[in-house]
Amino acid sequence: MFPSSQLPHMLSKGDFDLLETQLREKLLDAQYDLVKEKSAAILVLINGSDGAGKGEVINRLYEWLDDHFVETLCYAEPSEEERARPPAWRYWRDMPAKGRIGLVLGSWHHNILRARALGILDKVSYAAALDEINRNEQMLRLEGVHLLKIWLALDEDEARRRFKNKHKVISALKRPLVTEWAEIKGKKAAQRLNEAAQEMIELTSTGDAPWSVVPAKNPHYRDAAVGDLLLQTLINTASFPEGIRTPHVSSAPTSALPKPSLSARLDLTASINAETYVHALNDLQNRLNAATKSKKFSKKGLVILFEGNDAAGKGGAIRRVREALDPRRFRVIGVSAPTDEERARPYLWRFWRQIPRRGNVTIFDRSWYGRVLVERVEGFAVRDQWMRAYQEINDFERQLNEANYCVIKFWLAISPDEQLNRFRSREAEAYKRHKLTPEDWRNREKWPSYEEAMTDMIDRTSFNHAPWTLVEANDKKYARIKVLKTIVERLEV
Amino acid sequence: MFPSSQLPHMLSKGDFDLLETQLREKLLDAQYDLVKEKSAAILVLINGSDGAGKGEVINRLYEWLDDHFVETLCYAEPSEEERARPPAWRYWRDMPAKGRIGLVLGSWHHNILRARALGILDKVSYAAALDEINRNEQMLRLEGVHLLKIWLALDEDEARRRFKNKHKVISALKRPLVTEWAEIKGKKAAQRLNEAAQEMIELTSTGDAPWSVVPAKNPHYRDAAVGDLLLQTLINTASFPEGIRTPHVSSAPTSALPKPSLSARLDLTASINAETYVHALNDLQNRLNAATKSKKFSKKGLVILFEGNDAAGKGGAIRRVREALDPRRFRVIGVSAPTDEERARPYLWRFWRQIPRRGNVTIFDRSWYGRVLVERVEGFAVRDQWMRAYQEINDFERQLNEANYCVIKFWLAISPDEQLNRFRSREAEAYKRHKLTPEDWRNREKWPSYEEAMTDMIDRTSFNHAPWTLVEANDKKYARIKVLKTIVERLEV
Repeated sequence: MFPSSQLPHMLSKGDFDLLETQLREKLLDAQYDLVKEKSAAILVLINGSDGAGKGEVINRLYEWLDDHFVETLCYAEPSEEERARPPAWRYWRDMPAKGRIGLVLGSWHHNILRARALGILDKVSYAAALDEINRNEQMLRLEGVHLLKIWLALDEDEARRRFKNKHKVISALKRPLVTEWAEIKGKKAAQRLNEAAQEMIELTSTGDAPWSVVPAKNPHYRDAAVGDLLLQTLINTASFPEGIRTPHVSSAPTSALPKPSLSARLDLTASINAETYVHALNDLQNRLNAATKSKKFSKKGLVILFEGNDAAGKGGAIRRVREALDPRRFRVIGVSAPTDEERARPYLWRFWRQIPRRGNVTIFDRSWYGRVLVERVEGFAVRDQWMRAYQEINDFERQLNEANYCVIKFWLAISPDEQLNRFRSREAEAYKRHKLTPEDWRNREKWPSYEEAMTDMIDRTSFNHAPWTLVEANDKKYARIKVLKTIVERLEV
Repeated sequence: MFPSSQLPHMLSKGDFDLLETQLREKLLDAQYDLVKEKSAAILVLINGSDGAGKGEVINRLYEWLDDHFVETLCYAEPSEEERARPPAWRYWRDMPAKGRIGLVLGSWHHNILRARALGILDKVSYAAALDEINRNEQMLRLEGVHLLKIWLALDEDEARRRFKNKHKVISALKRPLVTEWAEIKGKKAAQRLNEAAQEMIELTSTGDAPWSVVPAKNPHYRDAAVGDLLLQTLINTASFPEGIRTPHVSSAPTSALPKPSLSARLDLTASINAETYVHALNDLQNRLNAATKSKKFSKKGLVILFEGNDAAGKGGAIRRVREALDPRRFRVIGVSAPTDEERARPYLWRFWRQIPRRGNVTIFDRSWYGRVLVERVEGFAVRDQWMRAYQEINDFERQLNEANYCVIKFWLAISPDEQLNRFRSREAEAYKRHKLTPEDWRNREKWPSYEEAMTDMIDRTSFNHAPWTLVEANDKKYARIKVLKTIVERLEV
């Protein structure tokens, strides 16, 4: 594999020392620019054959950089906390803030590559998995996490020789040998690993986040090459300021033609009488309680989100759901302005950190859809950001679904007249006055824009694994019953 | 126990309904004040006999409050991630931010109470454990986490009766029964639990954080009483603004008399020649590497912190330590300004969140001692805050020590002349210019104040389990060797 890596790549000690002095100074300068500007986070993914020197490369980078702004992220077998959540959760948890450099051992490519080398994944599934990685990496890059993906290449004979000499290497260099491929032994298997790696590098070398194959036989060459690549990455990051880094993102929704409003099609007169309500409420809460206590549920996670017009009754609906749940096992998250730790990371980070363990429930009052609703309408996100958010959100929800999470999404719709009534009654009642802010009145004026954003959102994010439920909410009782019924029916399947 | 709780405490449904309407409105008002002012976080610790209705009380509080700013914190058996760290880590991890209310099931009292009821702790150890809790709770309160400690009391006959009727209770109320005391069955054992609880309530009812014993036989009375207590707590919090909440904290260091400077006693001419240095460095790094790879180490955590004069060579010393460590198992934390999530929580939170799993190392470049050094000298902390910090820090380090963490603390000392030389050479060398800021020059002018703060610090925080090592650092090589030697000797014991 990698024909050029078979050619001799040498750097003498003397040449290396000369190079190092300059490289080091430039790296530090570039790193401090990154620290100061906080323009992006850098992830250096260090992959490669066993014995290629992953640990040594990391040590070298620590030597060259200011270690206060560097962290090693190392993923081996998942812990119990990690296994209780979707696979990507641990990568999201450790996401470095902007201004920092993460050195990643055992990145998201690792398990897939391993499965392919062991023959667990066929070619088609492998390609699909890599495709998902591509989308994810593109999202990271656009959200300000720049990737430097390094493959330290050894030819197979050299790799085997080093593996055998493992103990000698350790004692000579005082360095740990990073061993990832213990199961993949023998010439044939090593060959399969190299083939899988080559396939991976082909399929995930996008223009934005290409793989850099670094011949690793000569340590001086290897380290200098990695240092040089990192320097380039840092310089590119600095010259790629936020906001204008998305030159060509895809097709806009056609805004030339008038668009049918989805909520205009709802029958908002739907209602329910008080007696039916009490009975149905009692019955559904009991069923929800039972469903979330079942043995089956302990292997599931439940994520429920509420969006809707202001004053549509999200809080009241959430309360009826919450009442049926064990207070030790749910959390209600009101989504408002992000904290500074959240702003320093990709948009979805603040939702990932709230994903419950299996057996638990998180209820989001407003959600990640803020990106394509309020942030779109108010201009907090630029067009390219909210346009790509649809796919990012779909990917996020699919990951939850694949990890056995049930994602239930409600849009609570009321008519403009009903909203006006509710605003007025909120003004009147002391009890509810906290619920009305000047912002609510301002939002009301933008009703048509919100309708359009909502219609686009439903169009683009309705899938079998995470469908939207539109809830006619002019009658609060009707809405609450519909919400509970939807949840119970999804869980009782 | 609790004679008054044996008396009938009744509230009829009608009286409760009347009371509830008012209570609820006042609670919401007070909660929104808390949310707006962010003056404190409130922890409501809900403890009591099995069957007293802990779960029901929590549900009631959710009903009355705005659930967006409430969270349930529930501690049962520790998870693997939790067991890999000191016992208090999980409480620190979940600390609610200011403006929020946490409802705590299974607080830090729980295990101690259980151990006492089962006869595992004798009276003296029990008192000592409770004393530690008192100090910890006082610290929380002073750092803006107000505690409402509730004991839901049932007499023993009633408790036993409810426990037997468990299943009936659940189906009637659709509520989970919170069972904590499964091992403590039978009349005798229940009596012992009540006795231990009474002892606990006596010994941990401080003036700042008293226990409230709430008779729990009548649910209406119980819920109204808890609601009323929470309302009082919220109102007290609002009237207790930050900064002036520490009227009488103890003895100041005697500043009338001239104080001997600790670092003046050091022989700063200590040095080492280049050849000895190379050999010792190599030997010590090998030993450190071996010690941190030993099987014994996997059950230990290592926390190393560096304080010292500016330009004393902390970075260089850290680098020599780091080089010997597995990059997957250490992290270097440069302590600088706190994030907003950190500022919203008690001072020590940002260090607790960095405590490594056992088998791992965290190196702090500057540390929690900032409270009694820079924050004291620059006036960022008021006198009472840094005065009590000595004890808080000692408690923190003792907890680490008891959880089998090795805490190693270095003060790197240089002379004023040597500092001046180093500042000048930093100005001259491009390579090092990032290391010098105008602040360094300002700090230099305050040398005597820093000396005084440092002397007080060493005096007040040197204990067998976490002693300070003063390092003569005019000669960098000498300092590095002393640092490495100290660490190796602590680990090799």
